[in-house]
Amino acid sequence: MRDVAIIGIGITKFGELWGASFRDVGIEAGLKAVNDANLSGSEVDALYVGNMSAGRFVGQHHIGALIADYSGMASSNVPATRIEAGGASGGMAFRQGYMAVASGLHDIVVVGGAEKMTDVDDESSNSIVDSSADHQWESSMGATFASLHAMIARRCMHDGLVTREEIASVSVNNHAHGALNPNAQFRKAITLDTVLRSGIVADPLGMFDCAPISDGAAAVVLCPLDKAKDYVENPVKIASSAQASDTLALFHRDDITTFNATAVAAQKAYTMAGITANDIAVAEVHDSYTISEILALQDLGFFKRGEAGKAVMNGDATFGGKIVINSSGGLKARGHPIGATGVAQIVEITEQMRGTAGKRQVENAKYGLAQNTGGTGSAAVVSILEAI
Amino acid sequence: MRDVAIIGIGITKFGELWGASFRDVGIEAGLKAVNDANLSGSEVDALYVGNMSAGRFVGQHHIGALIADYSGMASSNVPATRIEAGGASGGMAFRQGYMAVASGLHDIVVVGGAEKMTDVDDESSNSIVDSSADHQWESSMGATFASLHAMIARRCMHDGLVTREEIASVSVNNHAHGALNPNAQFRKAITLDTVLRSGIVADPLGMFDCAPISDGAAAVVLCPLDKAKDYVENPVKIASSAQASDTLALFHRDDITTFNATAVAAQKAYTMAGITANDIAVAEVHDSYTISEILALQDLGFFKRGEAGKAVMNGDATFGGKIVINSSGGLKARGHPIGATGVAQIVEITEQMRGTAGKRQVENAKYGLAQNTGGTGSAAVVSILEAI
Repeated sequence: MRDVAIIGIGITKFGELWGASFRDVGIEAGLKAVNDANLSGSEVDALYVGNMSAGRFVGQHHIGALIADYSGMASSNVPATRIEAGGASGGMAFRQGYMAVASGLHDIVVVGGAEKMTDVDDESSNSIVDSSADHQWESSMGATFASLHAMIARRCMHDGLVTREEIASVSVNNHAHGALNPNAQFRKAITLDTVLRSGIVADPLGMFDCAPISDGAAAVVLCPLDKAKDYVENPVKIASSAQASDTLALFHRDDITTFNATAVAAQKAYTMAGITANDIAVAEVHDSYTISEILALQDLGFFKRGEAGKAVMNGDATFGGKIVINSSGGLKARGHPIGATGVAQIVEITEQMRGTAGKRQVENAKYGLAQNTGGTGSAAVVSILEAI
Repeated sequence: MRDVAIIGIGITKFGELWGASFRDVGIEAGLKAVNDANLSGSEVDALYVGNMSAGRFVGQHHIGALIADYSGMASSNVPATRIEAGGASGGMAFRQGYMAVASGLHDIVVVGGAEKMTDVDDESSNSIVDSSADHQWESSMGATFASLHAMIARRCMHDGLVTREEIASVSVNNHAHGALNPNAQFRKAITLDTVLRSGIVADPLGMFDCAPISDGAAAVVLCPLDKAKDYVENPVKIASSAQASDTLALFHRDDITTFNATAVAAQKAYTMAGITANDIAVAEVHDSYTISEILALQDLGFFKRGEAGKAVMNGDATFGGKIVINSSGGLKARGHPIGATGVAQIVEITEQMRGTAGKRQVENAKYGLAQNTGGTGSAAVVSILEAI
């Protein structure tokens, strides 16, 4: 397999984008990425799109052809493929794009992720999101993702792995980072008290423990590493990308205080990249709920089991600490347009590897990691980028 | 890239499977394919699933994780990826699986396609299917796939490229083949008169010009060609697989009497396989409507423009003719569970290459082709299999 580089990135503002349609946001991100790679668009060999449910959010399936067409690529008949894996749709699309270049089949590949969630009412949007859980045994019985994650949080607290305050500190950390990100949905730093006093969604998780409903899109351009400098001065190497599954339903797991799919994908990704967790300076992790970030930090090997909460609370997951987690603001503060999230993580890590993250820049970062999950940790994609 | 072989196939009966759930049909096909490849299941490195809209048909997203889990593969954390491209979902999943093995990233890959369409009412199922057209400019304005294909048929007839009787003969041909297929939804031969007298759906197309609403699933197992004989005696080589896009909306095309995406994908596939259309002895083509088959036969190069209708009518697309088209019965008679269709085509061509198609066997077939489209020819995947 060939080495692959990222040569272009693009992202829209995340938030409630009522003035833009699904296709508008998808195309904005894609064109920004193509421009960033100094391409005209006609060089693109293939397109991958991560999207969870345009079929239910905006009544549109066949998203690959849609985005290819409205990006002006129909005339060059570019193969366009949509990937869906709930919250991991974007990360999985990225991995497919990576494989398409690594295999030698395609040279220039655009990977986009997009979701437009605010065109339906709140009840519908929650029902759509929850359809990534096991419909037959979870969501149709009334279990929501919030309640499933609340059970995880409750179990972790019961087992002495984390405290309520430590869980809440994840939100404080990510909001502090989001305040530095001009594209973030929420740009206001908050206090622990705000999180702890917020309305309960599913005990013990409150409103500030849950990522929002968002619109937005992100895109990256990939090419073989040995051709990357033909296009840009600042390519970033994809050191690895790995994917794993777990049971769809939470109750089928032996242990709900860890996401096994993340641990397995991370181990594969570290091995493929020839590094360990200690080499990672900055990571975007999947904090759809604050408790998910706690699990991620342990499953990725950044902190030992039972120590992630303390680390976040003590400033070890922010600037100046052991590792910077969710410099973008994460799903909680940057926003979580589902299909876009995994690609937005790659955009942020690429900025970090390029050294162009501005106020969010992590010093001397050689390796960065993105972890994107779908369902209740039922699918995970872990990708590692390398500054070159 | 490595050469890739098909070492296992599995398919369910197609039809109105009210006794089975979505996951039931998906798993039945997958386990049949794994058994057919003489595997236990633990050897599987990755899973790809083609599915159009379980999200709307049965309220379930995250199909990759679902099928991995209920196939018993969650414990081995197999990466599972769902592909959606309207009617081309299955063919596109097959191409991704092919790439995953060809790249060297995975060895044993299962590709499945599944759809359960009969659990919703007729109005809903049509609305879901039509959401693969351009929602903003076609389906939300009242255009259905039947009416879009009727416009194509009317234009072809106006231009003297085909007659109504020739279009109808596609249905006669495919029903005759479906009568020989134990898994087909419709196993009754029909006459031209039956097609011509059937109730009008969208003039000139009648009920017998339209593929049915169906439930069903199909799966194949892939591995590197040089390891194939370790598992089975009868591997089939994947000579090529190519994909192309066109505009999503029909009215954006210069010419609606041809599907450009099919022509482009076919040319790539022939080049990659080092053969021409004349080398193909048997082909499964995407006859979601009878007129689509007429276009396919010309765009794939089997017959000259304006001659496909005559060829079907004169027996040149059936046993004893120039080429056997849709030996399975095609979408019209075998049935069209959308996400399953592209993989079911590969199952049929694999049977033909193995020489195990029974009453439907085409003699001395060295090469077979599958053409799967999404939308109104907005995406096309063309794959060529080779008997070895």
